[in-house]
Amino acid sequence: MFGLPKGSLEEPTIRLFQKAGWNIRKSSRSYKPSIDDSELDGRFVRSQEISRYVDHGFFDCGLCGYDWVVENESDVVEVCDLVYSRASNRPSYWVLAVPEASPIKEIKDLQGKRIATEVVGMTRKFLAKHGVEAEIEFSWGATEVKVPDMVDAIVDLTETGNSLRANKLRIVDTLLKTNTKLIANKKSWEDPKKRAKIENIAMMLQAALNAADKVGLKLNAKQENLDEILKILPALRNPTVNALSDKDWAAVEVVLQEKLVRDIIPKLKELGAVDIIEYPLNKVVR
Amino acid sequence: MFGLPKGSLEEPTIRLFQKAGWNIRKSSRSYKPSIDDSELDGRFVRSQEISRYVDHGFFDCGLCGYDWVVENESDVVEVCDLVYSRASNRPSYWVLAVPEASPIKEIKDLQGKRIATEVVGMTRKFLAKHGVEAEIEFSWGATEVKVPDMVDAIVDLTETGNSLRANKLRIVDTLLKTNTKLIANKKSWEDPKKRAKIENIAMMLQAALNAADKVGLKLNAKQENLDEILKILPALRNPTVNALSDKDWAAVEVVLQEKLVRDIIPKLKELGAVDIIEYPLNKVVR
Amino acid sequence: MFGLPKGSLEEPTIRLFQKAGWNIRKSSRSYKPSIDDSELDGRFVRSQEISRYVDHGFFDCGLCGYDWVVENESDVVEVCDLVYSRASNRPSYWVLAVPEASPIKEIKDLQGKRIATEVVGMTRKFLAKHGVEAEIEFSWGATEVKVPDMVDAIVDLTETGNSLRANKLRIVDTLLKTNTKLIANKKSWEDPKKRAKIENIAMMLQAALNAADKVGLKLNAKQENLDEILKILPALRNPTVNALSDKDWAAVEVVLQEKLVRDIIPKLKELGAVDIIEYPLNKVVR
Amino acid sequence: MFGLPKGSLEEPTIRLFQKAGWNIRKSSRSYKPSIDDSELDGRFVRSQEISRYVDHGFFDCGLCGYDWVVENESDVVEVCDLVYSRASNRPSYWVLAVPEASPIKEIKDLQGKRIATEVVGMTRKFLAKHGVEAEIEFSWGATEVKVPDMVDAIVDLTETGNSLRANKLRIVDTLLKTNTKLIANKKSWEDPKKRAKIENIAMMLQAALNAADKVGLKLNAKQENLDEILKILPALRNPTVNALSDKDWAAVEVVLQEKLVRDIIPKLKELGAVDIIEYPLNKVVR
Amino acid sequence: MFGLPKGSLEEPTIRLFQKAGWNIRKSSRSYKPSIDDSELDGRFVRSQEISRYVDHGFFDCGLCGYDWVVENESDVVEVCDLVYSRASNRPSYWVLAVPEASPIKEIKDLQGKRIATEVVGMTRKFLAKHGVEAEIEFSWGATEVKVPDMVDAIVDLTETGNSLRANKLRIVDTLLKTNTKLIANKKSWEDPKKRAKIENIAMMLQAALNAADKVGLKLNAKQENLDEILKILPALRNPTVNALSDKDWAAVEVVLQEKLVRDIIPKLKELGAVDIIEYPLNKVVR
Amino acid sequence: MFGLPKGSLEEPTIRLFQKAGWNIRKSSRSYKPSIDDSELDGRFVRSQEISRYVDHGFFDCGLCGYDWVVENESDVVEVCDLVYSRASNRPSYWVLAVPEASPIKEIKDLQGKRIATEVVGMTRKFLAKHGVEAEIEFSWGATEVKVPDMVDAIVDLTETGNSLRANKLRIVDTLLKTNTKLIANKKSWEDPKKRAKIENIAMMLQAALNAADKVGLKLNAKQENLDEILKILPALRNPTVNALSDKDWAAVEVVLQEKLVRDIIPKLKELGAVDIIEYPLNKVVR
Repeated sequence: MFGLPKGSLEEPTIRLFQKAGWNIRKSSRSYKPSIDDSELDGRFVRSQEISRYVDHGFFDCGLCGYDWVVENESDVVEVCDLVYSRASNRPSYWVLAVPEASPIKEIKDLQGKRIATEVVGMTRKFLAKHGVEAEIEFSWGATEVKVPDMVDAIVDLTETGNSLRANKLRIVDTLLKTNTKLIANKKSWEDPKKRAKIENIAMMLQAALNAADKVGLKLNAKQENLDEILKILPALRNPTVNALSDKDWAAVEVVLQEKLVRDIIPKLKELGAVDIIEYPLNKVVR
Repeated sequence: MFGLPKGSLEEPTIRLFQKAGWNIRKSSRSYKPSIDDSELDGRFVRSQEISRYVDHGFFDCGLCGYDWVVENESDVVEVCDLVYSRASNRPSYWVLAVPEASPIKEIKDLQGKRIATEVVGMTRKFLAKHGVEAEIEFSWGATEVKVPDMVDAIVDLTETGNSLRANKLRIVDTLLKTNTKLIANKKSWEDPKKRAKIENIAMMLQAALNAADKVGLKLNAKQENLDEILKILPALRNPTVNALSDKDWAAVEVVLQEKLVRDIIPKLKELGAVDIIEYPLNKVVR
Repeated sequence: MFGLPKGSLEEPTIRLFQKAGWNIRKSSRSYKPSIDDSELDGRFVRSQEISRYVDHGFFDCGLCGYDWVVENESDVVEVCDLVYSRASNRPSYWVLAVPEASPIKEIKDLQGKRIATEVVGMTRKFLAKHGVEAEIEFSWGATEVKVPDMVDAIVDLTETGNSLRANKLRIVDTLLKTNTKLIANKKSWEDPKKRAKIENIAMMLQAALNAADKVGLKLNAKQENLDEILKILPALRNPTVNALSDKDWAAVEVVLQEKLVRDIIPKLKELGAVDIIEYPLNKVVR
Repeated sequence: MFGLPKGSLEEPTIRLFQKAGWNIRKSSRSYKPSIDDSELDGRFVRSQEISRYVDHGFFDCGLCGYDWVVENESDVVEVCDLVYSRASNRPSYWVLAVPEASPIKEIKDLQGKRIATEVVGMTRKFLAKHGVEAEIEFSWGATEVKVPDMVDAIVDLTETGNSLRANKLRIVDTLLKTNTKLIANKKSWEDPKKRAKIENIAMMLQAALNAADKVGLKLNAKQENLDEILKILPALRNPTVNALSDKDWAAVEVVLQEKLVRDIIPKLKELGAVDIIEYPLNKVVR
Repeated sequence: MFGLPKGSLEEPTIRLFQKAGWNIRKSSRSYKPSIDDSELDGRFVRSQEISRYVDHGFFDCGLCGYDWVVENESDVVEVCDLVYSRASNRPSYWVLAVPEASPIKEIKDLQGKRIATEVVGMTRKFLAKHGVEAEIEFSWGATEVKVPDMVDAIVDLTETGNSLRANKLRIVDTLLKTNTKLIANKKSWEDPKKRAKIENIAMMLQAALNAADKVGLKLNAKQENLDEILKILPALRNPTVNALSDKDWAAVEVVLQEKLVRDIIPKLKELGAVDIIEYPLNKVVR
Repeated sequence: MFGLPKGSLEEPTIRLFQKAGWNIRKSSRSYKPSIDDSELDGRFVRSQEISRYVDHGFFDCGLCGYDWVVENESDVVEVCDLVYSRASNRPSYWVLAVPEASPIKEIKDLQGKRIATEVVGMTRKFLAKHGVEAEIEFSWGATEVKVPDMVDAIVDLTETGNSLRANKLRIVDTLLKTNTKLIANKKSWEDPKKRAKIENIAMMLQAALNAADKVGLKLNAKQENLDEILKILPALRNPTVNALSDKDWAAVEVVLQEKLVRDIIPKLKELGAVDIIEYPLNKVVR
């Protein structure tokens, strides 16, 4: 049984599985999807709760943010990172923030203050570690608008800090760096058949994620330029080089970061490469 | 003149033709699309009517469900199957169904009963074959909600039986298995030029459909593992094997079912394959 | 600083840059997007105004219709054509049109008449060249409905003439053929670093546009048929031919117009080609 | 049990019942709504089938077009007209139409021709009455595009004839004028309790429809102008006239067609009326 | 400062205030709306948090469910009930539910079980009162799908019990009946100016809610029937009776429940009432 | 022929006419609507062009902003103000604005600067009046983002100044206050029949606009409190007072600003008023 995250990660998760080779079809009530793999059953639950039910053993494995593994104090196996999300494919941070003009400059200034956060447990432990006592209240959302009117400080999730800056907040400290992980129940992980299946899924999800920002590139080049061309190609896969019928020429094929192509093609042209084509990839496994 | 199905098959048909190489642009009134092929003219009509107008000769060929060829008793050439649809790419079935609790257990129990269906002719012939007389009324839709209040039984289309089960219906018998087919007018089929064009279109539509669930796979492997690797690759196309500059290694390229990749890549890794990439395909012709 | 066209070209421009390798993210106010290239800054302004601000030097280069370069009498470098648009990837024409039943048959019949148009300057010069005087008024849009009630003639943009025909208008003369161009400021063009960057972007935008209607094709063929097969392949890139392990057979790979594939595959089959696959391309640079 | 029309009349029917005082809430499957009246149960079925199930007795009464009462040859009580629809609140017509250029000028010219229509029975009887024999085929929709390519004539529904003219069709004859009616099962109509309920519903639906294009109007006028003012007021309800504290003045209140107000207020002002207000109405019962 | 509920009550609250005479305009970030009353400032926060911030004194008053006053153990003044919601204008219930087939029949059977709920505090106190110990875990949503797989029982909100039945759940006990209330901070309530403003707003919100299901009715009747007519009119406001110019007739005007009109108009007609009209109301204050 | 404004005023105009008693139905191409008044024909054109075609005589009258009457220097009759718009029903201002930090403090500082605006003519005249010469360029939209990068100052439309402040702009001077007006062609205005029709439409549009923020209020009060109650009622229409059967009581009916009701009802309650109801109005003519 696989724990799938409901909410903002729901659609990206379905798309990621599809690229990895599994078709997840939501039913009308969306809790219990159908998956085209007789060895795989899944349930959509809130991302915050997945680690709890992996720990309990209801799920053999699941996808969720590392932050909620920590907040729930779940005792699970961290199989691998899978950094994807609706917007950006980057990790996020739980930070303690106050209004720009606040007199609070460091953690000890929080003594006796009121703090709103979605991660009450994590915040409590963080303050305890610093020997600070404060009133921590659970926030149901829109935490960033609560300072300074309703509370003195917040502990909130941020990716780039843009939203905090837009709300005129200043970061005092960082509690945790987090991203999505594949986690497994400890017993399931010891069962060789279950573990093989989980590792198989992990490999394919990574292969799909890995391909998302990569492309294949083919080009023809004169033998005399080949060395220089291969030198500037930051290939993620050993380049395949084939002789062409015209013995002076060779065909080169590589896989590389899509982002680099816009800078490399002009250089390849300068080195005499011709007939350059770029094609999309579904999966990349090194 | 090509008969194109309006309604739920309309968008999938346009997408299939696009993959096959034809761009069908609907006009505002949608009946008469423009197609970027001076040899091809098309009309969108209701799927139920296409076989009738292929039979009459207004269309040289058309795409429609086999069920309506049967219901309309159209005398046409069945060129090939083209199993695609909005949801599932699977065939469907016309079944006779009754409420779970109904005393009707077999066909002869329908004697004197009332049956609602969209396929009045097919149902009439089916009952006649079994020597049963019943009142058959044309249903304009939502046939499955009519039992048991309005009629005793229905003849309705189902793919997986899920919708029937959700309505607490039991299948008594199956009248017909059906899927989309390319059909042709008998005279047009005897005209060599028209037939060549129809066969050409059929080949390309099949090539596009054929590619939908297939992918290309490339990998590098040691010469010593090559035989074993080739043995587990269920290639749909003869694998291309190229020597690499390092003589101990070879590059392998195959085409296979996308669905199999998730199970094969882990095995390839075990056999020492590296640099595995999967890429998408537009058309596959064996 | 790059001038990006707002309005109907906005989304196609963003998609084109994405294919070319740049990710343009619109902010809420959409004027100042973020681009993932520290060397590239952009602004979205109305297509009609881009050439003016390239001329002034506020933009180093920009994308806009050639018509507005002419109407604004902007003194800029025309770097290259980039024929793309929401609908059709074809050039358009500014034409002088009158109602079908109008007595106006040639340009001189416009003497003393009233004409509505979005391109007042271009129209004024055109009439002056023909020695005709008329009242020309700026039209804020929907120009084609203004004849014959409000004005005697219009100068309007058309691609296929369909919209004019639907409004029962007749074309008297054509003033200008136009399509989207990449233009540059004259000083920026003389700055070697800026020019290199502009040429680099131009190359990648062209590579992406160039790939849009092209595909890669692979096939296996007997050595004996190879010559004939290569003869019918209108390859845009030198075909790559590889020997297969079975020495009688060869693997061929080409790039060609997607549109041609539907006619070529049947011919390839006739020439004994097997295992034909077509795959999509992201960029093509010759 | 009340038969409610599914499809284009569905939303207008729900709104009409709401104005009349009943709240119909569709469930997810929409067939079996909940109604806030313990004496009233309803089912949504296709408009074309309602008269059939009223005739059979499954429904005690129902709302449907008169045309389908005729086409189904249903033996039911016509309780009252209820002329409402999505667009226009006007009756429609089933007409026999041919292309403008067709040689068919009168009904007898249809001998041996092919006709497409949704109302096969009605068309068959109409031709039989005129002693004409023709091939009549059931049309699944978009009937108006079938002439002249697929059939010689059509029998189709039209309200204003605009759609026919847009398709360049000419009306040869009219078969039936139709509008929505409340119909009842003959046995239910004889049951006094059921009949009272049906009549009650009919009264309230009519009261709501009746109010839709009417408004209340109040004004103050001098006693001396009262007679003239009352003369020009086309009141649908006896005007209420009240003396005001200033004995020279009276307050007048009437109900009238909303459409007339735009012409009457200017006249009332001329006759010295002041303080004119118009207010909306929910129900009007004379 | 007024606490306004974000989420499902947000739009109904804005509509209710508009009917009551205040225009609340959400800004883009929606937290801080603009209100057209210089004496009134508001903030949108999650319904669950409003009572907490009314208690703290950040809000002078606020709208929220009674359940969250209880769950948060907030010490506030309950000004009045305001029963409105997106769907139904009815109170809801927090119930303890188990799967239909569960062996749990009464509260004491929960000893040692696991329970999921959004109201952890309320559930804890309820069990303590019954001397039962169980593991209670916070549920982030979709609580009803968690039994029986993840937990043994749930405490969830229900209005009609329909959703519970659809999930095949059985209610064991009810913890709390709840509906929306206007609550006030204790200090603000003692400030005469603030209290007057809060009472003023309460009166107008109630006036608007009160009018929602009421209508005005006018009719003309013979003096001789007047007594009987007035007897059957369940007027919520003293009927206004005016003599008409024809002394035998009188005009009657009443306010009554909209729901009753459908049954009363037929009776009024029987008693000879004529010219009956119903009109809508914005506010009703007794 | 009536000139109707296309664009942002289009839907508000259609709604205003509907309240006034005319039903304007847009056709698919939207230029030529159908209106249910055989004496009234209309065309939708851009707001900026209406005054030009009223001046030319193509339109007898039209609705447009006063600013474009001025900009186009149209010689027309200003029939009446009709202050309505999508958002706010308030007048707007054309202002000359510069960046907050700009050295431009007064109009003469604009000497030799570049200014972007949609109203080139109005700006030119304004500067000439102040003896200032500057480069004025036509802006196709989004004028406010052009300072300070592309131009030194702008002349733009603003209602509240919020958008200017959000763009960090400072207002230097105001050129024109503007709102929507009904304007008429001078010749049409002299034609008695046309003038009567235009005045009639003006009266009804004003009656509808006038009713938008007004309501009717009814209450019962003791005779002894009547004077005080009437004193605090800011009635827009002479109050109607009727004796009730209980001679100590009277029924009062007034029309007043909807906005005032929220403050007046509490006062009425204090003065012993009971049975207060508020009802909506469609039209108000004094």
